[in-house]
Amino acid sequence: MAQVAFIGLGNMGGPMAINLVKAGHQVKAFDLSLDALAVVKAEGADVAVSASDAVEGADFIISMLPASKHVLGLYLGEQGIAGSISKQALVIDCSTIDADSARTLGAGLAAQGIAFIDAPVSGGVGGAKAGTLTFIVGGDEAHFHRAKEVLQGMGKNTFHAGAIGAGQVAKICNNMLLSVLMVATSESLQMGIDNGLDPKVLSDIMLKSSGRNWTLELYNPCPGVLENVPSSNDYQGGFMVDLMAKDLGLALEAATQSQSSTPMGALARNLYVAHQRSGHGKLDFSSIFKSFERKA
Amino acid sequence: MAQVAFIGLGNMGGPMAINLVKAGHQVKAFDLSLDALAVVKAEGADVAVSASDAVEGADFIISMLPASKHVLGLYLGEQGIAGSISKQALVIDCSTIDADSARTLGAGLAAQGIAFIDAPVSGGVGGAKAGTLTFIVGGDEAHFHRAKEVLQGMGKNTFHAGAIGAGQVAKICNNMLLSVLMVATSESLQMGIDNGLDPKVLSDIMLKSSGRNWTLELYNPCPGVLENVPSSNDYQGGFMVDLMAKDLGLALEAATQSQSSTPMGALARNLYVAHQRSGHGKLDFSSIFKSFERKA
Amino acid sequence: MAQVAFIGLGNMGGPMAINLVKAGHQVKAFDLSLDALAVVKAEGADVAVSASDAVEGADFIISMLPASKHVLGLYLGEQGIAGSISKQALVIDCSTIDADSARTLGAGLAAQGIAFIDAPVSGGVGGAKAGTLTFIVGGDEAHFHRAKEVLQGMGKNTFHAGAIGAGQVAKICNNMLLSVLMVATSESLQMGIDNGLDPKVLSDIMLKSSGRNWTLELYNPCPGVLENVPSSNDYQGGFMVDLMAKDLGLALEAATQSQSSTPMGALARNLYVAHQRSGHGKLDFSSIFKSFERKA
Amino acid sequence: MAQVAFIGLGNMGGPMAINLVKAGHQVKAFDLSLDALAVVKAEGADVAVSASDAVEGADFIISMLPASKHVLGLYLGEQGIAGSISKQALVIDCSTIDADSARTLGAGLAAQGIAFIDAPVSGGVGGAKAGTLTFIVGGDEAHFHRAKEVLQGMGKNTFHAGAIGAGQVAKICNNMLLSVLMVATSESLQMGIDNGLDPKVLSDIMLKSSGRNWTLELYNPCPGVLENVPSSNDYQGGFMVDLMAKDLGLALEAATQSQSSTPMGALARNLYVAHQRSGHGKLDFSSIFKSFERKA
Repeated sequence: MAQVAFIGLGNMGGPMAINLVKAGHQVKAFDLSLDALAVVKAEGADVAVSASDAVEGADFIISMLPASKHVLGLYLGEQGIAGSISKQALVIDCSTIDADSARTLGAGLAAQGIAFIDAPVSGGVGGAKAGTLTFIVGGDEAHFHRAKEVLQGMGKNTFHAGAIGAGQVAKICNNMLLSVLMVATSESLQMGIDNGLDPKVLSDIMLKSSGRNWTLELYNPCPGVLENVPSSNDYQGGFMVDLMAKDLGLALEAATQSQSSTPMGALARNLYVAHQRSGHGKLDFSSIFKSFERKA
Repeated sequence: MAQVAFIGLGNMGGPMAINLVKAGHQVKAFDLSLDALAVVKAEGADVAVSASDAVEGADFIISMLPASKHVLGLYLGEQGIAGSISKQALVIDCSTIDADSARTLGAGLAAQGIAFIDAPVSGGVGGAKAGTLTFIVGGDEAHFHRAKEVLQGMGKNTFHAGAIGAGQVAKICNNMLLSVLMVATSESLQMGIDNGLDPKVLSDIMLKSSGRNWTLELYNPCPGVLENVPSSNDYQGGFMVDLMAKDLGLALEAATQSQSSTPMGALARNLYVAHQRSGHGKLDFSSIFKSFERKA
Repeated sequence: MAQVAFIGLGNMGGPMAINLVKAGHQVKAFDLSLDALAVVKAEGADVAVSASDAVEGADFIISMLPASKHVLGLYLGEQGIAGSISKQALVIDCSTIDADSARTLGAGLAAQGIAFIDAPVSGGVGGAKAGTLTFIVGGDEAHFHRAKEVLQGMGKNTFHAGAIGAGQVAKICNNMLLSVLMVATSESLQMGIDNGLDPKVLSDIMLKSSGRNWTLELYNPCPGVLENVPSSNDYQGGFMVDLMAKDLGLALEAATQSQSSTPMGALARNLYVAHQRSGHGKLDFSSIFKSFERKA
Repeated sequence: MAQVAFIGLGNMGGPMAINLVKAGHQVKAFDLSLDALAVVKAEGADVAVSASDAVEGADFIISMLPASKHVLGLYLGEQGIAGSISKQALVIDCSTIDADSARTLGAGLAAQGIAFIDAPVSGGVGGAKAGTLTFIVGGDEAHFHRAKEVLQGMGKNTFHAGAIGAGQVAKICNNMLLSVLMVATSESLQMGIDNGLDPKVLSDIMLKSSGRNWTLELYNPCPGVLENVPSSNDYQGGFMVDLMAKDLGLALEAATQSQSSTPMGALARNLYVAHQRSGHGKLDFSSIFKSFERKA
């Protein structure tokens, strides 16, 4: 069992830290929110008085923060904690940030002799709570294998995508593709409905045909086709439009830097942003289906 | 065993007729091409001297023709064969045409007391030869069940999509969605490559994540990731860009008539047409991957 | 002065017929609506009891109808009026229909020895009333020049686009381009606003730069930038979203038939249809600007 | 007449510096390229041995550099020249960079008591040589007016877009819109050609209709319609695809940061990047027309 520092106890980080405790690890957690600290303390985590305090003596440092500025600030900022981290520790950043920032962080930590992997997750809040997240890892193969000891306490699948930053790249490639699957599945189902088809029958046909995809199978955006998905619950829960819009922003920044042409991803991004601006940012991302319905 | 008239012995129709013979049906075939007739005769089909001759006494009439004008002309044109068809027969049109034409045909045949279903297929030439086609049927439930006697000789799956025309609608909904899956998978893989990822590793990760879809799993457009797919064979074989462009044209006509918004399908159609115009019409439709590569 | 039959007295046709009267022509009008007939009668037009009655002895027959089925039915249908038209007359169809239907009509009339041009208009209801329409003509050069005698009574500009059908093609090329100008101008202005710019200042700068276009100059979609445009009047009046969606449907049908790639026009069509489906079909087409605003 | 330091003598900066000399200003120029220095020296500029040397005693400092990293490095980097600039001087950065960097630069200079405006240009190399550039300025109104003394020596129009950074925002809004105008004009002309129209006739019609725009009027992308434009010269000269792709990258970064929906601009960016990747980066941006032609 490992000594783990966990920094960032939000909707995702909180349940992840708790699952580490349940898996038998010794977790010392930190967050600026006392409420968030109280929750994990009640589940058996130790509570640190600062980020530096949390990392003291830890084998693994796991961070789960909103954006790259928070991550870079935490480790490399003026009051950054890099100096407090043991040279034997492995830093695992699970935040979703741009690959360049991940590489900057890896280089900054390497300069101080500290090992690092980026390990963004997919699976959402539900996966965080259930301990079924997928971790997509960038970094040395050896560090990837070492990290499994703790990642397995929080998730079901771990993938090694390549060098540092590759975890972030693979995640945004996946999420960009996912966004297109969702929009295209929505418009296809609605076109079927507009031409007199039953969306459940059409879904069943396409699931056994070449239109099969993850959203059609597990996350059908048309209300009533599947039970227990956000579309059948007024698009509550799930993966918010706001978060999809954020991920698509990261994807398009990557495409700009690598001068890649991603017309479908770009269109999906713009449709999602328009949907967000119309006031649907807090709904599940399958709610894009509503933008294709006839309201008048 | 049934008496079947088969009209239209092209790349698809020829193998389908032969599979019907192999399944034990008595097949009387017709095509304007003597060569095509010779091929099916060699496999045991009877050869008719005209379309009218073919349908005489048949329990089932199956047609597989290039476009709606051929289908409407065959049955309802000035020298149309509707008058030669038995009132007990079931007409099964397997051509891919627009739903309106299918409905026009159904109404025209009904006026003469003849039963009809539209039954477009998916699965391509490979599926036609292997007898593994999928049939997507529009028409009465009773006719759908009756048709299975012959459809099962040519395919693996049969779906009932709804009333007459619904088979065509479901097929183009599926193929429109498929086209988007292919383009989006291509651009996502290329963006990963541009950012240093191995396309095989990225494919494996996305297959176990929310980007999973039919094209990624069975038809990967990036050369070398999967064996035995067109992308690993210089994009030869498979489903031609020309045919995908045709199907997307049908899809967008349907969307125009039903006033549906299908931004992804429309973008895919325009990218495929540009690809076709660049001289790639005879390549497999996964060759759209090439349009995202860096050539300079 | 000419003897003119005018068939179809809707929002466009009514004012056009009245302008012909004012220009000194002898106009005999027909419409299925008695109210519409009463309006033009009060302005000095003769009223016919049927379409056949209207065309009797006319030098020019002008039709302005909603869609190709009405136009084809009027002239070539079972009770079509072609037989009542003088062989010396020129038929001028001002309806916006697809080019194929215009060619079918031209061929049908030619078979009966009657001359024909297609002459769709741009300029909207305002232009119809003010007599400032633009006519885009397809047909023989000689017929084009002959038609000017009456077209000049209803409009300001007349263009000869090419052979029969070319008027329709040129009109939809123009309107497809117009739709893209409007959407792109809207999103650019909104992006400026989102980044702190004054839309009037930004409009002034782009008007003197390479972003200059008809919509920015004469039809600014951002409320308050220009006076006397629909955007400054709650998007009332002008050219309705429903009509733009119809024209874009015609444009995409033409693109499908000619296998042209029109990604921008296709995207505009889909954004307009989504806007229409959201209940904005009766607003002016510059209201697409609203779809880019932040409402939440 | 003013004492002007000019830093960055590339394709744009070189001719701009020379025009300042011709306008009677005392210009002290610097560039890392001795060749570039020799050219402006031959035209009467003084040559500095370093950037710091150039700015000594200058009333105006003008910089024209490739990207934000060069601009920020020049003024605020470790060997930045901010310390060498007179407190009475006005810094005018004419580079095209992102607005955030412009604001960072303005704040950094303000901290040292130095006035700053961003003044990106439009008009290309041709405009730089002819002295007909347009300057789009962000910064204090007073500084804008003061800058005119030198800007008028290099251009024809100067616009005040708003606060610091606004010049950059207005420029990318304009160029994003321009890119869409070019693509949409290209596809509309090609659709007309595909349907039998003469592109010159169609251009003339649309120029007098609602499709009128800057590209159609002054920069027609179809070879042979206009003389003396890149399309009639094998797409040589003009504004390179590479540069349009760069500007569109900046536009989409701005859209990402302001969470704006810009579907048309995003589509144009992706079509331009695909065109660039196909090996057309050095052609004029009107060469996107070629991507719509039928080659097979």
